[in-house]
Amino acid sequence: MRRIETVAALRRYIAAAPRPIGLVPTMGALHAGHISLVDAARDDCRTVVVSIFVNPTQFAADEDLAQYPRPIDRDLAMLRDSVADAAFTPDAAEMYPPGFATTIAVGGPALPLEGAMRPGHFAGVATVVAKLLLAAAPDRAYFGQKDGQQVAVVRRLVRDLHIPVDIVVGPTVREPDGLAMSSRNVYLSPDQRAAAPAVHRGLLAARRRYVAGERDRAALEAACGQALAGVREITRIDYVALVDADTMAPWEGAGRPMLAVAVRMGATRLIDNLLLDGD
Amino acid sequence: MRRIETVAALRRYIAAAPRPIGLVPTMGALHAGHISLVDAARDDCRTVVVSIFVNPTQFAADEDLAQYPRPIDRDLAMLRDSVADAAFTPDAAEMYPPGFATTIAVGGPALPLEGAMRPGHFAGVATVVAKLLLAAAPDRAYFGQKDGQQVAVVRRLVRDLHIPVDIVVGPTVREPDGLAMSSRNVYLSPDQRAAAPAVHRGLLAARRRYVAGERDRAALEAACGQALAGVREITRIDYVALVDADTMAPWEGAGRPMLAVAVRMGATRLIDNLLLDGD
Repeated sequence: MRRIETVAALRRYIAAAPRPIGLVPTMGALHAGHISLVDAARDDCRTVVVSIFVNPTQFAADEDLAQYPRPIDRDLAMLRDSVADAAFTPDAAEMYPPGFATTIAVGGPALPLEGAMRPGHFAGVATVVAKLLLAAAPDRAYFGQKDGQQVAVVRRLVRDLHIPVDIVVGPTVREPDGLAMSSRNVYLSPDQRAAAPAVHRGLLAARRRYVAGERDRAALEAACGQALAGVREITRIDYVALVDADTMAPWEGAGRPMLAVAVRMGATRLIDNLLLDGD
Repeated sequence: MRRIETVAALRRYIAAAPRPIGLVPTMGALHAGHISLVDAARDDCRTVVVSIFVNPTQFAADEDLAQYPRPIDRDLAMLRDSVADAAFTPDAAEMYPPGFATTIAVGGPALPLEGAMRPGHFAGVATVVAKLLLAAAPDRAYFGQKDGQQVAVVRRLVRDLHIPVDIVVGPTVREPDGLAMSSRNVYLSPDQRAAAPAVHRGLLAARRRYVAGERDRAALEAACGQALAGVREITRIDYVALVDADTMAPWEGAGRPMLAVAVRMGATRLIDNLLLDGD
């Protein structure tokens, strides 16, 4: 596996690589969720590039940029095992050199939920994703449904700017007890970790109601909320919101219903979601 | 010459067109300045695409969007005469369909001068230029030095987002009396039109001082300002600013010195500039 650290070297690599090219953008601290995306790219593409970049511009000042895990040697070993062709591992000065001055702001699907809780987060995401998509020029780029709002924002970005790439979304990969895999799960204490599957139980409770025919948004949100309400380790519920999976606007009966949840356990935020009409 | 009105049709056209492809982005109301860019593209490229789109998002609410000239039949005839291969003439609903939600903001070179006088202007420019560059995927894109700050903003945008295109800049084309060609010159009354070459005279006065060895920014700006001060038809001087041509920061002796001027004659703004070390 080739390790590439500059945009110029990535460009040269890409120019000679057999197509289709698949890109899996990550912030590293890889887990089975990321690897499922690498596997999907491996199935679809002749060249698989995985980017590892802890993008500072998508963290707010009070967030966990400094502590975010960066186990680069372990990540590279996992990518070698999953037969990625190249790892693109730029540093911040490579992505944001002196004089860098461009920000891409997405409205619409980026405004509610995480957009409201994390000001500037999706501008950071949209800008770095656009840079990665334009630098690596993949035919397909792979994102996880775990970050369902990010998927909607990236789809909007790609459509609005005519970036020539297909966005492929992989299903959320979960621990055996249902907790969605996340690089941030390592922040959880043992008690928090034991309580964390409540989020998935809440999502499943809402889905059971949906499958049984319930279509009232408030009732579906409440079915999830009830599963969270009694959990002592959940110190705050940021939102439980049934939204249209494309627009992130409140679900009104048309479009795909996505139930999105964000809770805090002390200093750690957990987000998760379920497409209620999905499998 | 092919007329293309949708992004999807442009994509199909581009996929089959011989490279290199040159794109000349315009707002129509074509004049000899635009045609000089088409000629330059014709010299360099196997396929020449000219876009004509009066981009609403780069006009502020109090600006001249409604009155902006749109002589489309005349424009298309001029492009046929200059042997362009295709004219891309989308309407606003094609470029900004329902749900469109993305804005590219450039800081740095977009902040002073026109950026300060026209809030939102360069975000509109950067967004539409990015869309055109990504939709048409040209090898080279052609811009006029007349809009010197726009050139700096587009260069910054392209570098920051890794858009794979070479930016080619054509010299300002002037009327015989020195007035820079502009689609907005039609707004001038006969008296204003007669007085308008004062802007170029001011720029030339500063260049003479520069060539004679003057390197003091204030003295060079003053040499230009004096040529404007006595002109009754100039109702306001928005700025006379000697800036670094790449960063648009005040020129400090390094970098290429660009003297930029914006004046108003009644409701009409004229902008012009000169690279003091150019020919």
